[in-house]
Amino acid sequence: MSWEENVRRVEPYVPGEQPKCDNVIKLNTNECPYPPAPGVEAAAHKLVADRLRLYPDTDATKIVDALATYYKVKPEQVFVGVGSDDVLSMVFLTLFHSDKPVLFPDITYSFYDVWAKLYDIPYECILLDEDFCIRKEDYYRPNGGIVIANPNAPTGVFMPLSEIEDILQHNPESVVVVDEAYVDFGATSALPLLEKYENLLIVQTFSKSRAMAGARIGFAIGSEKMIRYINDVKFSVNSYTMSFPVQEIGAEAVKDDAYFREIVDKMIRTREWTKEELSKLGFTFPDSYTNFIFATHRTERAEDIFSYLKSKNIYVRHFKKPRIDNYLRISIGTDEQMQILIDTLKEYLKC
Amino acid sequence: MSWEENVRRVEPYVPGEQPKCDNVIKLNTNECPYPPAPGVEAAAHKLVADRLRLYPDTDATKIVDALATYYKVKPEQVFVGVGSDDVLSMVFLTLFHSDKPVLFPDITYSFYDVWAKLYDIPYECILLDEDFCIRKEDYYRPNGGIVIANPNAPTGVFMPLSEIEDILQHNPESVVVVDEAYVDFGATSALPLLEKYENLLIVQTFSKSRAMAGARIGFAIGSEKMIRYINDVKFSVNSYTMSFPVQEIGAEAVKDDAYFREIVDKMIRTREWTKEELSKLGFTFPDSYTNFIFATHRTERAEDIFSYLKSKNIYVRHFKKPRIDNYLRISIGTDEQMQILIDTLKEYLKC
Repeated sequence: MSWEENVRRVEPYVPGEQPKCDNVIKLNTNECPYPPAPGVEAAAHKLVADRLRLYPDTDATKIVDALATYYKVKPEQVFVGVGSDDVLSMVFLTLFHSDKPVLFPDITYSFYDVWAKLYDIPYECILLDEDFCIRKEDYYRPNGGIVIANPNAPTGVFMPLSEIEDILQHNPESVVVVDEAYVDFGATSALPLLEKYENLLIVQTFSKSRAMAGARIGFAIGSEKMIRYINDVKFSVNSYTMSFPVQEIGAEAVKDDAYFREIVDKMIRTREWTKEELSKLGFTFPDSYTNFIFATHRTERAEDIFSYLKSKNIYVRHFKKPRIDNYLRISIGTDEQMQILIDTLKEYLKC
Repeated sequence: MSWEENVRRVEPYVPGEQPKCDNVIKLNTNECPYPPAPGVEAAAHKLVADRLRLYPDTDATKIVDALATYYKVKPEQVFVGVGSDDVLSMVFLTLFHSDKPVLFPDITYSFYDVWAKLYDIPYECILLDEDFCIRKEDYYRPNGGIVIANPNAPTGVFMPLSEIEDILQHNPESVVVVDEAYVDFGATSALPLLEKYENLLIVQTFSKSRAMAGARIGFAIGSEKMIRYINDVKFSVNSYTMSFPVQEIGAEAVKDDAYFREIVDKMIRTREWTKEELSKLGFTFPDSYTNFIFATHRTERAEDIFSYLKSKNIYVRHFKKPRIDNYLRISIGTDEQMQILIDTLKEYLKC
């Protein structure tokens, strides 16, 4: 016998490639092509290093308060973590402590089943329909919790709020998590439903629309009771997850709403232009409400297009998974980057 | 039935109080009284916010490489996390996946049993002897892993390396974690034993001797194989735990060895002075190899001293726990702060 027999073996989530060279057009991890609000850099440059010798505020009050004000909820309804991955990991560990399976779609954020396996949580993947839509009736069955990414990733498909509410109505005994990582790009948040449903939890992130993937800030908004449960587990893992520098700069990204709206609007306009151009080139895709487009080509294999683009230093995402292996997930960059993408695709397709 | 029935209920770890007012002498969470290396502030002030829009380096290469160079190990032997709490939490989750109990002392870092409970890991607390020392023979029994804080917290007691090695020799089938959060204040690290023992893992932190509690950086050094296992689980929880700002400033704290030695030496000198003064006032304590002193008074109750000091805006730590509830854990501050502490104690004791 060896110490290795006591090791928990897992197959970890593989994040999108982070190329280390500079001359790359990076459209593979849904990052924002614009910098964060100007106040963020200003706050970083004012950082007093002497404050670093002290532990940071355990409650991340600055960020929590900024979010509570922005979303018009109580600070006690906000949980902040090291990216929405940390938040969702805590949610799985805290709220899905049941023998019944947690339900989520077969095609969705590919971390959900990783957390379920890690924490020994039973789960069931529910097939999306042929158009990559969730059939709400599939969620009318006994379960230990429900997770819906809305808009969904990597498909970009948005489920109307009435259907989210329908699922909530049919599941008063389950926690329903709506992962709204991409909600700011034209979809509708389930936030107004919080008043009616204590079992609803909404998860969002600073990594996409707030241009701060590098800061690692995610958050959940829910009932005070649910946030308290998550915090209890969080304080059993790590009392201080949000570093002082990140707390200082994070709040700045929330306060500057004008800048936030400006960059989101720009990305939406670029997305709509990209949709038109991709259509002209023979691509089809579910209508996207996110900062990416999930596209397949009429005749060319996704994998071949992926390799060609990579050879031209354009990185998009290709998932070698059943049902979606002929699709590419293309993040929305700047107008200039998307023009280069379209030109490169034209070259490849010889249009 | 309600959604609350699926909630994992825990009793979370309660960190030391973080008073929000400024005119406090804070000797309750073992923070460093000096700022981090000058390069840290410089790096923060050079931060390019545009880089924040991208995900940070998943491998925290800058910090890992700086540590590997400093400790003369391979980068593949270094794991970095959000404080040593994050590192230890990952270690518990990854390496203690056994039906046999994990062993650690009854008086030690009070997070160990919190993680064990959270992750459903069986554990046994082994009594320290009357001098708060570990009896190595107590660890000659079947177990699912061993955790030893060395020097121990909150006692400050250091166990000689020969005894750590003895425990390793008796436990080739277990992972032996040596938590060296306080090792830099005059104790000896088990690092040289890594060459002989693949089952040894050493955990350290930037929060004490490196004056960066606010940055949340901890690390583990072990065999390449063990680090790979921990990383696999880490990547199943959160691909990106170390934010870009923290990666930028963290490496600077490791590179400036002269500054590091200077502040550590200062703290050791202050500790030795404080020991003498406390002795004169009727306190006794195990000899401390850390940046705190674990002291009890001949006649006065710890709780009363604690309350008096708090009323004078001096915060120390008091644990309401069996065997140690008549002790105070006093962090080492600046000379000036310790002088005020001693003066205040004199007032109270009417010396």
